[in-house]
Amino acid sequence: MSGPTFDDWARDIAARTEEALGELLPTARVAPGRLHDAMRYSVLGGGKRVRPMLAYAAGLVSDADPQRLRVAAAAVEMIHAYSLIHDDLPCMDDDVLRRGKPTTHVEFDEATALLAGDALQSLAFQLLAEYRLADDPSAQLHMIQVFAVACGSRGMAGGQAIDLENVGKALTLPELEFMHILKTGALIRASVLLGAHCGKVPDSAQMERLDRYAKCVGLAFQVVDDILDDEGDTATLGKTAGKDRDANKPTYTSLLGLPGAKKFADELLADAHEALSTFGEQARRLHELADFIVKRDR
Amino acid sequence: MSGPTFDDWARDIAARTEEALGELLPTARVAPGRLHDAMRYSVLGGGKRVRPMLAYAAGLVSDADPQRLRVAAAAVEMIHAYSLIHDDLPCMDDDVLRRGKPTTHVEFDEATALLAGDALQSLAFQLLAEYRLADDPSAQLHMIQVFAVACGSRGMAGGQAIDLENVGKALTLPELEFMHILKTGALIRASVLLGAHCGKVPDSAQMERLDRYAKCVGLAFQVVDDILDDEGDTATLGKTAGKDRDANKPTYTSLLGLPGAKKFADELLADAHEALSTFGEQARRLHELADFIVKRDR
Repeated sequence: MSGPTFDDWARDIAARTEEALGELLPTARVAPGRLHDAMRYSVLGGGKRVRPMLAYAAGLVSDADPQRLRVAAAAVEMIHAYSLIHDDLPCMDDDVLRRGKPTTHVEFDEATALLAGDALQSLAFQLLAEYRLADDPSAQLHMIQVFAVACGSRGMAGGQAIDLENVGKALTLPELEFMHILKTGALIRASVLLGAHCGKVPDSAQMERLDRYAKCVGLAFQVVDDILDDEGDTATLGKTAGKDRDANKPTYTSLLGLPGAKKFADELLADAHEALSTFGEQARRLHELADFIVKRDR
Repeated sequence: MSGPTFDDWARDIAARTEEALGELLPTARVAPGRLHDAMRYSVLGGGKRVRPMLAYAAGLVSDADPQRLRVAAAAVEMIHAYSLIHDDLPCMDDDVLRRGKPTTHVEFDEATALLAGDALQSLAFQLLAEYRLADDPSAQLHMIQVFAVACGSRGMAGGQAIDLENVGKALTLPELEFMHILKTGALIRASVLLGAHCGKVPDSAQMERLDRYAKCVGLAFQVVDDILDDEGDTATLGKTAGKDRDANKPTYTSLLGLPGAKKFADELLADAHEALSTFGEQARRLHELADFIVKRDR
Protein backbone atom coordinates (compact mmCIF):
# COMPACT_ATOMS: atom_id res chain seq x y z
CA MET A 1 0.00 0.00 0.00
CA SER A 2 1.22 3.45 -0.90
CA GLY A 3 0.53 6.96 0.31
CA PRO A 4 0.58 8.47 3.77
CA THR A 5 0.05 6.38 6.88
CA PHE A 6 -3.33 6.46 8.54
CA ASP A 7 -2.03 8.74 11.28
CA ASP A 8 -0.70 11.23 8.73
CA TRP A 9 -3.92 11.08 6.73
CA ALA A 10 -6.03 11.54 9.87
CA ARG A 11 -3.93 14.52 10.94
CA ASP A 12 -4.29 16.03 7.48
CA ILE A 13 -8.09 15.64 7.50
CA ALA A 14 -8.31 17.10 11.00
CA ALA A 15 -6.21 20.09 9.90
CA ARG A 16 -8.27 20.61 6.74
CA THR A 17 -11.47 20.39 8.77
CA GLU A 18 -10.19 22.86 11.33
CA GLU A 19 -9.28 25.26 8.55
CA ALA A 20 -12.63 24.85 6.80
CA LEU A 21 -14.55 25.35 10.04
CA GLY A 22 -12.51 28.43 10.85
CA GLU A 23 -13.42 29.88 7.47
CA LEU A 24 -17.06 28.86 7.37
CA LEU A 25 -17.98 29.95 10.90
CA PRO A 26 -18.73 33.68 11.21
CA THR A 27 -16.01 35.57 13.06
CA ALA A 28 -16.59 37.17 16.45
CA ARG A 29 -16.09 40.56 14.79
CA VAL A 30 -19.45 40.13 13.06
CA ALA A 31 -22.53 40.91 15.22
CA PRO A 32 -23.74 39.22 17.35
CA GLY A 33 -20.13 38.82 18.43
CA ARG A 34 -20.69 36.90 21.64
CA LEU A 35 -22.84 34.31 19.88
CA HIS A 36 -20.28 33.85 17.11
CA ASP A 37 -17.58 33.61 19.73
CA ALA A 38 -19.53 30.83 21.47
CA MET A 39 -20.06 29.00 18.17
CA ARG A 40 -16.35 29.12 17.38
CA TYR A 41 -15.42 28.11 20.93
CA SER A 42 -17.66 25.05 20.68
CA VAL A 43 -16.48 23.89 17.28
CA LEU A 44 -12.82 24.85 16.90
CA GLY A 45 -9.66 23.53 18.47
CA GLY A 46 -10.75 20.15 19.66
CA GLY A 47 -12.44 16.88 18.97
CA LYS A 48 -11.21 13.84 17.13
CA ARG A 49 -13.05 14.87 13.93
CA VAL A 50 -14.22 11.30 13.45
CA ARG A 51 -17.29 12.32 11.43
CA PRO A 52 -15.31 14.50 8.99
CA MET A 53 -12.85 11.62 8.58
CA LEU A 54 -15.72 9.28 7.77
CA ALA A 55 -17.06 11.73 5.18
CA TYR A 56 -13.63 12.10 3.55
CA ALA A 57 -12.98 8.35 3.65
CA ALA A 58 -16.35 7.59 2.08
CA GLY A 59 -15.66 10.23 -0.55
CA LEU A 60 -12.55 8.30 -1.59
CA VAL A 61 -14.79 5.38 -2.54
CA SER A 62 -16.77 7.58 -4.95
CA ASP A 63 -13.89 9.78 -6.20
CA ALA A 64 -15.46 12.84 -4.61
CA ASP A 65 -14.04 16.33 -5.12
CA PRO A 66 -12.13 17.31 -1.93
CA GLN A 67 -13.67 20.80 -2.10
CA ARG A 68 -17.11 19.25 -1.75
CA LEU A 69 -15.96 16.96 1.04
CA ARG A 70 -14.56 19.95 2.88
CA VAL A 71 -18.01 21.54 3.10
CA ALA A 72 -19.80 18.28 3.87
CA ALA A 73 -17.30 17.47 6.62
CA ALA A 74 -17.66 20.92 8.15
CA ALA A 75 -21.46 20.68 8.14
CA VAL A 76 -21.40 17.28 9.82
CA GLU A 77 -18.98 18.51 12.47
CA MET A 78 -21.14 21.59 13.17
CA ILE A 79 -24.13 19.35 13.80
CA HIS A 80 -21.99 17.18 16.08
CA ALA A 81 -20.78 20.23 18.00
CA TYR A 82 -24.31 21.60 18.35
CA SER A 83 -25.47 18.27 19.78
CA LEU A 84 -22.64 18.31 22.33
CA ILE A 85 -23.47 21.87 23.44
CA HIS A 86 -27.12 21.00 24.03
CA ASP A 87 -26.27 17.62 25.55
CA ASP A 88 -24.02 19.28 28.12
CA LEU A 89 -26.66 21.80 29.27
CA PRO A 90 -27.88 21.58 32.89
CA CYS A 91 -31.31 20.31 31.79
CA MET A 92 -29.64 17.47 29.88
CA ASP A 93 -26.42 15.82 31.08
CA ASP A 94 -25.30 18.86 33.07
CA ASP A 95 -21.64 18.46 32.22
CA VAL A 96 -18.94 21.04 32.86
CA LEU A 97 -16.02 19.57 30.93
CA ARG A 98 -15.75 18.73 27.25
CA ARG A 99 -12.64 18.14 25.17
CA GLY A 100 -10.64 19.20 28.21
CA LYS A 101 -12.25 22.66 28.30
CA PRO A 102 -15.23 24.13 30.18
CA THR A 103 -18.46 23.32 28.34
CA THR A 104 -20.03 26.15 26.36
CA HIS A 105 -22.66 27.10 28.94
CA VAL A 106 -19.97 27.22 31.63
CA GLU A 107 -17.62 29.35 29.52
CA PHE A 108 -20.43 31.63 28.30
CA ASP A 109 -23.92 31.18 29.76
CA GLU A 110 -26.84 28.84 29.23
CA ALA A 111 -28.82 31.06 26.90
CA THR A 112 -25.81 31.72 24.69
CA ALA A 113 -25.00 28.00 24.61
CA LEU A 114 -28.58 27.18 23.64
CA LEU A 115 -28.56 29.73 20.81
CA ALA A 116 -25.06 28.75 19.65
CA GLY A 117 -26.31 25.19 19.21
CA ASP A 118 -29.43 26.38 17.40
CA ALA A 119 -27.42 28.59 15.07
CA LEU A 120 -24.89 25.84 14.33
CA GLN A 121 -27.70 23.60 13.16
CA SER A 122 -28.98 26.35 10.82
CA LEU A 123 -25.47 27.02 9.54
CA ALA A 124 -24.89 23.35 8.70
CA PHE A 125 -28.01 23.30 6.52
CA GLN A 126 -27.08 26.63 5.01
CA LEU A 127 -23.71 25.25 3.87
CA LEU A 128 -25.23 22.08 2.44
CA ALA A 129 -27.58 24.21 0.32
CA GLU A 130 -25.13 26.99 -0.53
CA TYR A 131 -22.17 25.05 -1.93
CA ARG A 132 -22.33 22.70 -4.88
CA LEU A 133 -22.00 19.20 -3.47
CA ALA A 134 -23.39 17.08 -6.29
CA ASP A 135 -23.48 17.33 -10.09
CA ASP A 136 -27.24 17.04 -9.99
CA PRO A 137 -29.00 19.60 -7.74
CA SER A 138 -31.85 17.10 -7.21
CA ALA A 139 -29.32 14.69 -5.76
CA GLN A 140 -28.11 17.45 -3.47
CA LEU A 141 -31.66 18.07 -2.23
CA HIS A 142 -31.84 14.37 -1.47
CA MET A 143 -28.56 14.59 0.48
CA ILE A 144 -29.99 17.42 2.58
CA GLN A 145 -33.16 15.47 3.23
CA VAL A 146 -31.29 12.35 4.37
CA PHE A 147 -29.05 14.48 6.53
CA ALA A 148 -32.01 16.29 8.12
CA VAL A 149 -33.64 12.97 8.99
CA ALA A 150 -30.40 11.92 10.68
CA CYS A 151 -30.44 15.07 12.80
CA GLY A 152 -34.10 15.04 13.77
CA SER A 153 -36.57 13.18 15.94
CA ARG A 154 -35.98 9.92 14.12
CA GLY A 155 -32.25 10.47 14.30
CA MET A 156 -29.89 12.15 16.70
CA ALA A 157 -32.37 14.33 18.62
CA GLY A 158 -34.71 11.34 18.95
CA GLY A 159 -31.89 9.19 20.31
CA GLN A 160 -31.14 11.77 22.96
CA ALA A 161 -34.81 11.86 23.94
CA ILE A 162 -34.86 8.07 24.32
CA ASP A 163 -31.63 8.26 26.32
CA LEU A 164 -33.25 10.69 28.76
CA GLU A 165 -36.41 8.62 29.08
CA ASN A 166 -34.37 5.56 29.97
CA VAL A 167 -32.22 6.85 32.81
CA GLY A 168 -32.53 4.38 35.65
CA LYS A 169 -34.45 1.87 33.54
CA ALA A 170 -33.40 -1.66 32.74
CA LEU A 171 -33.15 -1.90 28.97
CA THR A 172 -32.93 -4.95 26.80
CA LEU A 173 -30.09 -5.15 24.29
CA PRO A 174 -32.40 -4.37 21.32
CA GLU A 175 -33.75 -1.30 23.16
CA LEU A 176 -30.25 -0.06 23.92
CA GLU A 177 -29.26 -0.67 20.32
CA PHE A 178 -32.29 1.25 18.99
CA MET A 179 -31.36 4.20 21.16
CA HIS A 180 -27.76 4.29 19.99
CA ILE A 181 -28.62 3.72 16.33
CA LEU A 182 -30.49 7.01 16.61
CA LYS A 183 -28.32 8.90 19.07
CA THR A 184 -24.85 8.30 17.64
CA GLY A 185 -25.39 6.02 14.68
CA ALA A 186 -27.60 8.31 12.63
CA LEU A 187 -25.06 11.11 12.28
CA ILE A 188 -22.19 8.70 11.69
CA ARG A 189 -24.21 7.03 8.97
CA ALA A 190 -25.10 10.42 7.51
CA SER A 191 -21.41 11.36 7.46
CA VAL A 192 -20.59 8.31 5.38
CA LEU A 193 -23.53 8.74 3.01
CA LEU A 194 -22.93 12.46 2.59
CA GLY A 195 -19.27 11.88 1.77
CA ALA A 196 -20.07 9.13 -0.70
CA HIS A 197 -22.73 11.24 -2.43
CA CYS A 198 -20.26 14.07 -2.99
CA GLY A 199 -18.75 11.90 -5.72
CA LYS A 200 -19.95 9.51 -8.44
CA VAL A 201 -23.34 8.22 -7.35
CA PRO A 202 -22.73 4.73 -5.93
CA ASP A 203 -25.08 1.99 -7.16
CA SER A 204 -27.66 0.65 -4.74
CA ALA A 205 -25.63 -2.47 -3.84
CA GLN A 206 -22.64 -0.25 -3.01
CA MET A 207 -24.83 2.12 -1.00
CA GLU A 208 -26.20 -0.81 0.94
CA ARG A 209 -22.69 -1.95 1.80
CA LEU A 210 -21.61 1.53 2.83
CA ASP A 211 -24.75 1.78 4.91
CA ARG A 212 -24.01 -1.53 6.64
CA TYR A 213 -20.46 -0.38 7.30
CA ALA A 214 -21.73 2.89 8.76
CA LYS A 215 -24.24 1.15 11.00
CA CYS A 216 -21.60 -1.21 12.39
CA VAL A 217 -19.12 1.60 12.95
CA GLY A 218 -21.76 3.83 14.51
CA LEU A 219 -22.80 1.20 16.99
CA ALA A 220 -19.20 0.15 17.68
CA PHE A 221 -18.42 3.77 18.40
CA GLN A 222 -20.99 3.81 21.18
CA VAL A 223 -19.98 0.44 22.60
CA VAL A 224 -16.37 1.67 22.81
CA ASP A 225 -17.60 4.93 24.37
CA ASP A 226 -19.27 2.90 27.11
CA ILE A 227 -16.13 0.82 27.60
CA LEU A 228 -13.96 3.94 27.87
CA ASP A 229 -16.44 5.61 30.19
CA ASP A 230 -16.33 2.54 32.39
CA GLU A 231 -12.55 2.09 32.33
CA GLY A 232 -11.29 5.59 31.75
CA ASP A 233 -10.30 8.45 33.91
CA THR A 234 -11.27 12.06 33.40
CA ALA A 235 -7.81 13.25 32.34
CA THR A 236 -7.54 10.79 29.43
CA LEU A 237 -11.09 11.31 28.21
CA GLY A 238 -11.11 15.11 28.45
CA LYS A 239 -14.64 14.79 29.76
CA THR A 240 -16.08 13.59 33.04
CA ALA A 241 -15.45 9.82 33.32
CA GLY A 242 -17.84 7.27 34.76
CA LYS A 243 -20.66 9.73 34.30
CA ASP A 244 -23.07 7.50 32.43
CA ARG A 245 -22.46 4.65 34.82
CA ASP A 246 -22.93 6.93 37.84
CA ALA A 247 -26.07 8.42 36.33
CA ASN A 248 -27.45 4.90 36.19
CA LYS A 249 -27.79 5.10 32.45
CA PRO A 250 -28.05 1.82 30.62
CA THR A 251 -24.75 1.04 28.87
CA TYR A 252 -23.24 -1.85 26.95
CA THR A 253 -20.86 -2.56 29.79
CA SER A 254 -23.69 -2.69 32.34
CA LEU A 255 -25.66 -4.99 30.06
CA LEU A 256 -22.93 -7.23 28.68
CA GLY A 257 -20.14 -6.76 31.24
CA LEU A 258 -16.79 -5.34 30.22
CA PRO A 259 -15.51 -8.47 28.43
CA GLY A 260 -18.87 -8.95 26.69
CA ALA A 261 -18.88 -5.35 25.49
CA LYS A 262 -15.34 -5.72 24.13
CA LYS A 263 -16.30 -8.89 22.30
CA PHE A 264 -19.35 -7.14 20.82
CA ALA A 265 -17.21 -4.23 19.63
CA ASP A 266 -14.85 -6.67 17.92
CA GLU A 267 -17.74 -8.45 16.21
CA LEU A 268 -19.06 -5.14 14.91
CA LEU A 269 -15.58 -4.28 13.66
CA ALA A 270 -15.36 -7.57 11.75
CA ASP A 271 -18.79 -6.88 10.22
CA ALA A 272 -17.70 -3.40 9.20
CA HIS A 273 -14.64 -4.78 7.40
CA GLU A 274 -16.73 -7.46 5.72
CA ALA A 275 -19.21 -4.87 4.43
CA LEU A 276 -16.35 -3.16 2.58
CA SER A 277 -14.99 -6.35 1.04
CA THR A 278 -16.01 -5.54 -2.56
CA PHE A 279 -14.50 -2.04 -2.64
CA GLY A 280 -10.78 -2.80 -2.73
CA GLU A 281 -8.08 -0.22 -2.19
CA GLN A 282 -10.42 2.79 -2.39
CA ALA A 283 -11.97 1.75 0.91
CA ARG A 284 -8.60 1.65 2.69
CA ARG A 285 -9.28 4.69 4.87
CA LEU A 286 -12.74 3.40 5.79
CA HIS A 287 -11.12 0.12 6.94
CA GLU A 288 -8.51 2.02 8.92
CA LEU A 289 -11.13 4.31 10.44
CA ALA A 290 -13.15 1.36 11.68
CA ASP A 291 -10.02 0.02 13.38
CA PHE A 292 -9.26 3.47 14.77
CA ILE A 293 -12.74 3.89 16.20
CA VAL A 294 -12.87 0.49 17.86
CA LYS A 295 -9.28 0.40 19.09
CA ARG A 296 -8.91 4.00 20.32
CA ASP A 297 -7.46 4.14 23.82
CA ARG A 298 -7.82 0.44 24.47
CA MET B 1 -63.09 42.91 -5.34
CA SER B 2 -64.29 39.34 -5.54
CA GLY B 3 -63.58 36.17 -3.60
CA PRO B 4 -63.72 35.43 0.11
CA THR B 5 -63.26 38.16 2.70
CA PHE B 6 -59.90 38.45 4.40
CA ASP B 7 -61.26 36.81 7.55
CA ASP B 8 -62.54 33.83 5.58
CA TRP B 9 -59.29 33.56 3.65
CA ALA B 10 -57.24 33.79 6.86
CA ARG B 11 -59.36 31.11 8.51
CA ASP B 12 -58.93 28.89 5.46
CA ILE B 13 -55.13 29.28 5.48
CA ALA B 14 -55.00 28.62 9.22
CA ALA B 15 -57.08 25.46 8.74
CA ARG B 16 -54.95 24.26 5.82
CA THR B 17 -51.79 24.93 7.81
CA GLU B 18 -53.13 23.09 10.83
CA GLU B 19 -53.98 20.12 8.62
CA ALA B 20 -50.60 20.16 6.90
CA LEU B 21 -48.74 20.38 10.21
CA GLY B 22 -50.80 17.53 11.63
CA GLU B 23 -49.83 15.39 8.66
CA LEU B 24 -46.18 16.38 8.43
CA LEU B 25 -45.34 16.08 12.14
CA PRO B 26 -44.61 12.52 13.27
CA THR B 27 -47.39 11.06 15.43
CA ALA B 28 -46.88 10.26 19.09
CA ARG B 29 -47.34 6.57 18.21
CA VAL B 30 -43.93 6.62 16.49
CA ALA B 31 -40.91 6.34 18.84
CA PRO B 32 -39.74 8.47 20.57
CA GLY B 33 -43.38 9.08 21.48
CA ARG B 34 -42.88 11.65 24.18
CA LEU B 35 -40.68 13.80 21.95
CA HIS B 36 -43.18 13.64 19.09
CA ASP B 37 -45.94 14.45 21.55
CA ALA B 38 -44.02 17.55 22.67
CA MET B 39 -43.41 18.61 19.06
CA ARG B 40 -47.11 18.31 18.23
CA TYR B 41 -48.11 20.06 21.46
CA SER B 42 -45.86 23.00 20.59
CA VAL B 43 -46.96 23.39 17.00
CA LEU B 44 -50.61 22.35 16.76
CA GLY B 45 -53.81 23.97 17.94
CA GLY B 46 -52.73 27.56 18.38
CA GLY B 47 -51.01 30.59 17.02
CA LYS B 48 -52.21 33.16 14.54
CA ARG B 49 -50.29 31.45 11.69
CA VAL B 50 -49.12 34.84 10.47
CA ARG B 51 -46.02 33.41 8.78
CA PRO B 52 -47.94 30.73 6.84
CA MET B 53 -50.39 33.45 5.76
CA LEU B 54 -47.50 35.57 4.52
CA ALA B 55 -46.11 32.62 2.56
CA TYR B 56 -49.49 31.89 0.97
CA ALA B 57 -50.16 35.56 0.23
CA ALA B 58 -46.73 35.98 -1.39
CA GLY B 59 -47.38 32.83 -3.38
CA LEU B 60 -50.48 34.48 -4.90
CA VAL B 61 -48.21 37.12 -6.41
CA SER B 62 -46.17 34.46 -8.24
CA ASP B 63 -49.03 32.04 -9.05
CA ALA B 64 -47.51 29.39 -6.79
CA ASP B 65 -48.92 25.88 -6.56
CA PRO B 66 -50.91 25.60 -3.27
CA GLN B 67 -49.37 22.18 -2.64
CA ARG B 68 -45.93 23.76 -2.56
CA LEU B 69 -47.12 26.61 -0.37
CA ARG B 70 -48.58 24.08 2.03
CA VAL B 71 -45.15 22.60 2.68
CA ALA B 72 -43.35 25.95 2.77
CA ALA B 73 -45.91 27.34 5.22
CA ALA B 74 -45.59 24.29 7.47
CA ALA B 75 -41.79 24.54 7.49
CA VAL B 76 -41.87 28.22 8.38
CA GLU B 77 -44.35 27.60 11.19
CA MET B 78 -42.22 24.75 12.57
CA ILE B 79 -39.24 27.10 12.77
CA HIS B 80 -41.41 29.70 14.48
CA ALA B 81 -42.67 27.13 16.99
CA TYR B 82 -39.15 25.88 17.72
CA SER B 83 -38.01 29.45 18.40
CA LEU B 84 -40.90 29.96 20.84
CA ILE B 85 -40.10 26.73 22.71
CA HIS B 86 -36.46 27.71 23.18
CA ASP B 87 -37.34 31.35 23.90
CA ASP B 88 -39.65 30.26 26.73
CA LEU B 89 -37.03 28.07 28.46
CA PRO B 90 -35.90 29.09 31.96
CA CYS B 91 -32.44 30.08 30.70
CA MET B 92 -34.05 32.44 28.18
CA ASP B 93 -37.31 34.30 28.91
CA ASP B 94 -38.48 31.76 31.50
CA ASP B 95 -42.11 31.95 30.50
CA VAL B 96 -44.84 29.57 31.64
CA LEU B 97 -47.71 30.59 29.38
CA ARG B 98 -47.90 30.61 25.58
CA ARG B 99 -50.97 30.72 23.36
CA GLY B 100 -53.03 30.33 26.53
CA LYS B 101 -51.42 26.98 27.39
CA PRO B 102 -48.50 25.97 29.62
CA THR B 103 -45.23 26.36 27.71
CA THR B 104 -43.61 23.17 26.43
CA HIS B 105 -41.03 22.82 29.20
CA VAL B 106 -43.79 23.27 31.80
CA GLU B 107 -46.10 20.74 30.16
CA PHE B 108 -43.26 18.26 29.53
CA ASP B 109 -39.81 19.01 30.93
CA GLU B 110 -36.87 21.20 29.97
CA ALA B 111 -34.85 18.52 28.22
CA THR B 112 -37.81 17.39 26.14
CA ALA B 113 -38.60 20.99 25.23
CA LEU B 114 -35.00 21.59 24.18
CA LEU B 115 -34.98 18.49 21.98
CA ALA B 116 -38.45 19.19 20.56
CA GLY B 117 -37.18 22.57 19.38
CA ASP B 118 -34.03 21.02 17.95
CA ALA B 119 -35.99 18.34 16.10
CA LEU B 120 -38.50 20.86 14.73
CA GLN B 121 -35.66 22.80 13.16
CA SER B 122 -34.33 19.61 11.51
CA LEU B 123 -37.81 18.68 10.32
CA ALA B 124 -38.37 22.06 8.69
CA PHE B 125 -35.20 21.65 6.61
CA GLN B 126 -36.11 18.06 5.85
CA LEU B 127 -39.45 19.14 4.37
CA LEU B 128 -37.90 21.94 2.33
CA ALA B 129 -35.51 19.42 0.77
CA GLU B 130 -37.94 16.50 0.50
CA TYR B 131 -40.88 18.08 -1.37
CA ARG B 132 -40.64 19.71 -4.75
CA LEU B 133 -41.00 23.46 -4.15
CA ALA B 134 -39.54 24.91 -7.34
CA ASP B 135 -39.38 23.83 -10.98
CA ASP B 136 -35.62 24.14 -10.88
CA PRO B 137 -33.90 22.15 -8.09
CA SER B 138 -31.05 24.71 -8.04
CA ALA B 139 -33.62 27.38 -7.21
CA GLN B 140 -34.88 25.18 -4.40
CA LEU B 141 -31.36 24.85 -2.99
CA HIS B 142 -31.18 28.63 -3.05
CA MET B 143 -34.50 28.83 -1.16
CA ILE B 144 -33.13 26.53 1.54
CA GLN B 145 -29.97 28.59 1.81
CA VAL B 146 -31.86 31.87 2.21
CA PHE B 147 -34.16 30.26 4.73
CA ALA B 148 -31.23 28.85 6.74
CA VAL B 149 -29.60 32.28 6.90
CA ALA B 150 -32.89 33.68 8.24
CA CYS B 151 -32.89 31.05 11.01
CA GLY B 152 -29.26 31.30 12.02
CA SER B 153 -26.83 33.60 13.78
CA ARG B 154 -27.37 36.38 11.28
CA GLY B 155 -31.11 35.88 11.48
CA MET B 156 -33.52 34.74 14.16
CA ALA B 157 -31.09 33.05 16.56
CA GLY B 158 -28.75 36.04 16.29
CA GLY B 159 -31.60 38.43 17.06
CA GLN B 160 -32.40 36.49 20.21
CA ALA B 161 -28.76 36.62 21.26
CA ILE B 162 -28.71 40.40 20.81
CA ASP B 163 -31.99 40.64 22.73
CA LEU B 164 -30.43 38.81 25.68
CA GLU B 165 -27.27 40.91 25.60
CA ASN B 166 -29.33 44.08 25.75
CA VAL B 167 -31.55 43.43 28.76
CA GLY B 168 -31.30 46.48 31.00
CA LYS B 169 -29.32 48.45 28.42
CA ALA B 170 -30.35 51.73 26.84
CA LEU B 171 -30.50 51.13 23.11
CA THR B 172 -30.67 53.65 20.33
CA LEU B 173 -33.46 53.29 17.78
CA PRO B 174 -31.09 51.88 15.10
CA GLU B 175 -29.78 49.30 17.59
CA LEU B 176 -33.30 48.25 18.52
CA GLU B 177 -34.20 48.04 14.86
CA PHE B 178 -31.16 45.90 14.05
CA MET B 179 -32.14 43.48 16.82
CA HIS B 180 -35.71 43.13 15.59
CA ILE B 181 -34.77 42.89 11.92
CA LEU B 182 -32.91 39.75 12.95
CA LYS B 183 -35.14 38.44 15.72
CA THR B 184 -38.58 38.70 14.12
CA GLY B 185 -37.97 40.28 10.75
CA ALA B 186 -35.71 37.61 9.29
CA LEU B 187 -38.25 34.79 9.52
CA ILE B 188 -41.12 37.01 8.36
CA ARG B 189 -39.02 38.05 5.38
CA ALA B 190 -38.11 34.42 4.71
CA SER B 191 -41.80 33.48 4.80
CA VAL B 192 -42.58 36.01 2.07
CA LEU B 193 -39.58 35.08 -0.08
CA LEU B 194 -40.18 31.34 0.31
CA GLY B 195 -43.83 31.74 -0.69
CA ALA B 196 -42.97 33.88 -3.70
CA HIS B 197 -40.26 31.44 -4.85
CA CYS B 198 -42.74 28.56 -4.83
CA GLY B 199 -44.20 30.08 -8.01
CA LYS B 200 -42.93 31.81 -11.15
CA VAL B 201 -39.57 33.31 -10.32
CA PRO B 202 -40.22 37.02 -9.70
CA ASP B 203 -37.84 39.44 -11.45
CA SER B 204 -35.31 41.29 -9.32
CA ALA B 205 -37.35 44.52 -9.17
CA GLN B 206 -40.35 42.54 -7.93
CA MET B 207 -38.21 40.66 -5.41
CA GLU B 208 -36.88 43.95 -4.14
CA ARG B 209 -40.40 45.25 -3.62
CA LEU B 210 -41.49 42.07 -1.87
CA ASP B 211 -38.40 42.29 0.27
CA ARG B 212 -39.17 45.89 1.22
CA TYR B 213 -42.75 44.89 2.04
CA ALA B 214 -41.49 42.03 4.21
CA LYS B 215 -39.02 44.22 6.07
CA CYS B 216 -41.70 46.82 6.86
CA VAL B 217 -44.20 44.18 7.96
CA GLY B 218 -41.58 42.35 10.03
CA LEU B 219 -40.60 45.47 11.89
CA ALA B 220 -44.22 46.64 12.25
CA PHE B 221 -45.03 43.25 13.73
CA GLN B 222 -42.50 43.84 16.51
CA VAL B 223 -43.55 47.43 17.14
CA VAL B 224 -47.15 46.26 17.54
CA ASP B 225 -45.97 43.44 19.80
CA ASP B 226 -44.35 46.01 22.06
CA ILE B 227 -47.52 48.15 22.02
CA LEU B 228 -49.68 45.14 22.90
CA ASP B 229 -47.25 44.04 25.59
CA ASP B 230 -47.42 47.51 27.08
CA GLU B 231 -51.19 47.93 26.85
CA GLY B 232 -52.48 44.39 27.02
CA ASP B 233 -53.48 42.06 29.75
CA THR B 234 -52.49 38.42 30.06
CA ALA B 235 -55.93 37.01 29.22
CA THR B 236 -56.15 38.79 25.83
CA LEU B 237 -52.57 38.02 24.82
CA GLY B 238 -52.56 34.37 25.86
CA LYS B 239 -49.07 35.00 27.16
CA THR B 240 -47.70 36.89 30.12
CA ALA B 241 -48.32 40.60 29.55
CA GLY B 242 -45.97 43.44 30.44
CA LYS B 243 -43.15 40.93 30.59
CA ASP B 244 -40.69 42.70 28.34
CA ARG B 245 -41.34 46.01 30.05
CA ASP B 246 -40.93 44.42 33.48
CA ALA B 247 -37.75 42.65 32.40
CA ASN B 248 -36.36 46.06 31.53
CA LYS B 249 -35.95 45.07 27.92
CA PRO B 250 -35.65 47.88 25.43
CA THR B 251 -38.92 48.23 23.48
CA TYR B 252 -40.37 50.64 20.95
CA THR B 253 -42.82 51.94 23.53
CA SER B 254 -40.04 52.61 26.04
CA LEU B 255 -38.02 54.38 23.36
CA LEU B 256 -40.71 56.25 21.46
CA GLY B 257 -43.54 56.35 23.99
CA LEU B 258 -46.89 54.72 23.24
CA PRO B 259 -48.12 57.41 20.78
CA GLY B 260 -44.73 57.49 19.05
CA ALA B 261 -44.69 53.71 18.67
CA LYS B 262 -48.19 53.76 17.20
CA LYS B 263 -47.20 56.46 14.74
CA PHE B 264 -44.12 54.44 13.73
CA ALA B 265 -46.24 51.34 13.16
CA ASP B 266 -48.57 53.34 10.92
CA GLU B 267 -45.63 54.69 8.92
CA LEU B 268 -44.28 51.19 8.40
CA LEU B 269 -47.74 50.08 7.31
CA ALA B 270 -47.91 52.87 4.73
CA ASP B 271 -44.46 51.88 3.44
CA ALA B 272 -45.54 48.25 3.19
CA HIS B 273 -48.55 49.20 1.07
CA GLU B 274 -46.42 51.45 -1.11
CA ALA B 275 -43.92 48.64 -1.76
CA LEU B 276 -46.74 46.57 -3.24
CA SER B 277 -48.07 49.34 -5.47
CA THR B 278 -46.98 47.76 -8.77
CA PHE B 279 -48.49 44.33 -8.12
CA GLY B 280 -52.20 45.04 -8.47
CA GLU B 281 -54.95 42.63 -7.43
CA GLN B 282 -52.58 39.65 -6.93
CA ALA B 283 -51.11 41.41 -3.89
CA ARG B 284 -54.51 41.88 -2.26
CA ARG B 285 -53.87 39.39 0.56
CA LEU B 286 -50.44 40.87 1.24
CA HIS B 287 -52.06 44.31 1.62
CA GLU B 288 -54.73 42.89 3.91
CA LEU B 289 -52.14 40.99 5.94
CA ALA B 290 -50.14 44.15 6.54
CA ASP B 291 -53.31 45.81 7.86
CA PHE B 292 -54.10 42.74 9.94
CA ILE B 293 -50.64 42.67 11.51
CA VAL B 294 -50.55 46.34 12.38
CA LYS B 295 -54.16 46.67 13.49
CA ARG B 296 -54.56 43.44 15.47
CA ASP B 297 -56.10 44.04 18.88
CA ARG B 298 -55.76 47.80 18.74
